[in-house]
Amino acid sequence: MSKKKSQLILGAFLPDAGHHLAAWRYPGARADGGLNFPHYWRLAQKAERGKFDFIFLSDGMGIRDHAHGLDELSRPGHAHLVHFEPLTLLSALSVVTERIGLVATASTHCNEPYHIARQFASLDHLSDGRAGWSVTASGHNAQTEVAARYERAREFLHVVSSLWDSWDDDAFLRDKTSGAYFDPDKLHALDHCGKHFSVRGPLSVARSPQGQPVIIQTNSSSEAALELAAETAEILFTAQRTFAEAKAFYSNMKEKLAKYDRSPDDLKITPGVFPVIGRTEQEAIDKYEELQELIDPKSGLTLLSELMGDIDLSPYPLDEPLPALLDNRAGKYRLKELTDLVGRENRTLRQLYMSLAGPRGHKMILGTPEQIADQFEEWFKGGAADGFNIMPPYLPGALDEFVELVIPLLQQRGLFRTEYEGRTLREHLGLRRPINKFTKAKEYSSA
Amino acid sequence: MSKKKSQLILGAFLPDAGHHLAAWRYPGARADGGLNFPHYWRLAQKAERGKFDFIFLSDGMGIRDHAHGLDELSRPGHAHLVHFEPLTLLSALSVVTERIGLVATASTHCNEPYHIARQFASLDHLSDGRAGWSVTASGHNAQTEVAARYERAREFLHVVSSLWDSWDDDAFLRDKTSGAYFDPDKLHALDHCGKHFSVRGPLSVARSPQGQPVIIQTNSSSEAALELAAETAEILFTAQRTFAEAKAFYSNMKEKLAKYDRSPDDLKITPGVFPVIGRTEQEAIDKYEELQELIDPKSGLTLLSELMGDIDLSPYPLDEPLPALLDNRAGKYRLKELTDLVGRENRTLRQLYMSLAGPRGHKMILGTPEQIADQFEEWFKGGAADGFNIMPPYLPGALDEFVELVIPLLQQRGLFRTEYEGRTLREHLGLRRPINKFTKAKEYSSA
Repeated sequence: MSKKKSQLILGAFLPDAGHHLAAWRYPGARADGGLNFPHYWRLAQKAERGKFDFIFLSDGMGIRDHAHGLDELSRPGHAHLVHFEPLTLLSALSVVTERIGLVATASTHCNEPYHIARQFASLDHLSDGRAGWSVTASGHNAQTEVAARYERAREFLHVVSSLWDSWDDDAFLRDKTSGAYFDPDKLHALDHCGKHFSVRGPLSVARSPQGQPVIIQTNSSSEAALELAAETAEILFTAQRTFAEAKAFYSNMKEKLAKYDRSPDDLKITPGVFPVIGRTEQEAIDKYEELQELIDPKSGLTLLSELMGDIDLSPYPLDEPLPALLDNRAGKYRLKELTDLVGRENRTLRQLYMSLAGPRGHKMILGTPEQIADQFEEWFKGGAADGFNIMPPYLPGALDEFVELVIPLLQQRGLFRTEYEGRTLREHLGLRRPINKFTKAKEYSSA
Repeated sequence: MSKKKSQLILGAFLPDAGHHLAAWRYPGARADGGLNFPHYWRLAQKAERGKFDFIFLSDGMGIRDHAHGLDELSRPGHAHLVHFEPLTLLSALSVVTERIGLVATASTHCNEPYHIARQFASLDHLSDGRAGWSVTASGHNAQTEVAARYERAREFLHVVSSLWDSWDDDAFLRDKTSGAYFDPDKLHALDHCGKHFSVRGPLSVARSPQGQPVIIQTNSSSEAALELAAETAEILFTAQRTFAEAKAFYSNMKEKLAKYDRSPDDLKITPGVFPVIGRTEQEAIDKYEELQELIDPKSGLTLLSELMGDIDLSPYPLDEPLPALLDNRAGKYRLKELTDLVGRENRTLRQLYMSLAGPRGHKMILGTPEQIADQFEEWFKGGAADGFNIMPPYLPGALDEFVELVIPLLQQRGLFRTEYEGRTLREHLGLRRPINKFTKAKEYSSA
């Protein structure tokens, strides 16, 4: 059984220069971080010194459509335009870290299950059990309808998880004397023929140290996404802005699990937090203002346009509310959702992108380390979160500040580990190691 | 221009336990090498101490069909049944090595160009310019006709190479003051719509340290393969058994290059060599016999059956020549080709698999370090090879022996480097760094 954790789960979400739209322009931030291995090496080691459960890399397969002109694209909001392919980066980082979990996003929309199963199982072996797959059903030019994308995602996950169970943990004998390399009874070769995929096993990777890499889901914006998370996810990275909202979401999700014969502790809920840390609250506010002033209006518009499904916003004046007719277009968010996200008082184009430029709809905390620790404690003890996915505004500086100033406070309050107790990501998270489903099935049938 | 090299090119082809069919049963060989990172770490560092140009990892995406029963499969000829996904393994190895090239096979039959372009470009960045892609048009269940597979491979290579040129080398400005992240004139977004692929660029990876990772080809068994190699490959790994045969092949291939406006030095030809090293020739022969005695007849038959396209050979007696009617089946090799490979005197099933169990059709040298160095010198100076791809019979032992006993002799004779002079794989090989094709096109058009 998975365990109720008495301490927070903390992820470090680490996009090259940081999460703020203008992070790359901030003094000291790594504008070239996306393809800079020493930068990531330093970040991963810092996060490990902070005893984070895992580092988290998102992934956009391709570069967004540049329908609105190269000039806008050349002033990207965030520097995450060119970057390492996440599985290669995490494999390299597995060598320079020892305990921290290694999580990367890969889309079920743009990949094939055999490749994904193989790459994450391989990373799990390389890292001695620290791999996590953040499943997303979206992708570059994913125009397909939400329900259809989640239907594909569900089948994709089923195939990947079955491939991961191709071999029993003790299938390999490697008996030099007899010449027997494995026990044929311990091979479970998948022969899947479904609506979206036809896949033959077995996987060319032995069962991995964690049994199965940890499954993370980052989308909680549709009913289809929430159902898939309740059925399959072990960590849900979600955007929640107020305590009340987060608590309601938390209870609702935990209740959903029973439907899939899972216990509340099988899914850990970690809202994203965008923390701006100051020695005083005013210092944090000043720092945030400094970041905000670096936002190029063109990149602000590009961000907004992306979130709304590539609408051309250039005809509209920056300081007037957007016409309501834009509500009707399909995008990741509709205008109404965006204004809900940032508060109804922020209705103009400029107000909208300025409000989204930092937290992107996640919880923002501007304040002292104490204030941040207080809010974490309130949410954790109040049943609104199992932990948080930390989104540093700029990198490497804001990760350093979090590790040096916030983590020690959480540790003093008994809310966070002072040393890793386990070796695998599952052990850090208090998640059980899954039994091979084919072995289990055989035990049932012979019982 | 690429340069005529005055010294040998040496690759270290490193499959887990080694190349001999029974390698994993040999005393000291790593039977569990396929998923053992410390094993590969040690191998890569040893090869680097030997100043090899590159290490080479082959890849079978999936596990072969087990039409002939699990018992045969459970006694695999070589331990290469479960193993790391090569790109994740090479990424990890890039951190623990400094100079040696990192080459992995990926099939154009089972992958998509955008993924492959991205992964190898990412590895090239991670390793500071040491990545090579070994292109194969074959793959698991590749029943498609040879010509069609090579047509797809050619388009695949065109797309990958265009994606690698998405950005000029100096496209990224990252000007914190002005907010300009890149120069829009230096972005070349592909919009490819061909027979096999529709791919939009740009690649989400900046142009890599080598401009383009090195292109390797390993198949020289059909006219379609040879034409693709002449057009696109920079290293050709080929199977040649005699000096005369190798010299004819070498001249023929080098001549072919002119057709594609390439010079003879743009393609390096490296036959595979399976060396069994002894202090005396007799010791080498004894060692080989010891390996041969470890071959399980079932795994011998499985090897043969695989090479002949999964024919069921179990009905035929081991010690009689195979019926000629088997010649008609389609496989990687026909029976006639196999007997040509091993010599007409080896006609029985047992003789066939015993002859193939070590070198798999490549050149075998049983002998002292001097004898091996003599043959290398003869082939290299005689115009039959630009270098060799070394296939150690068992690992790690046979790589150690090669590095400790053969490399010093080659160095003494001036045939091999004593220190790396360059930093990138292209520099080791004497290959030019390719100019961005879109920049070049622009220069021509404005000239």
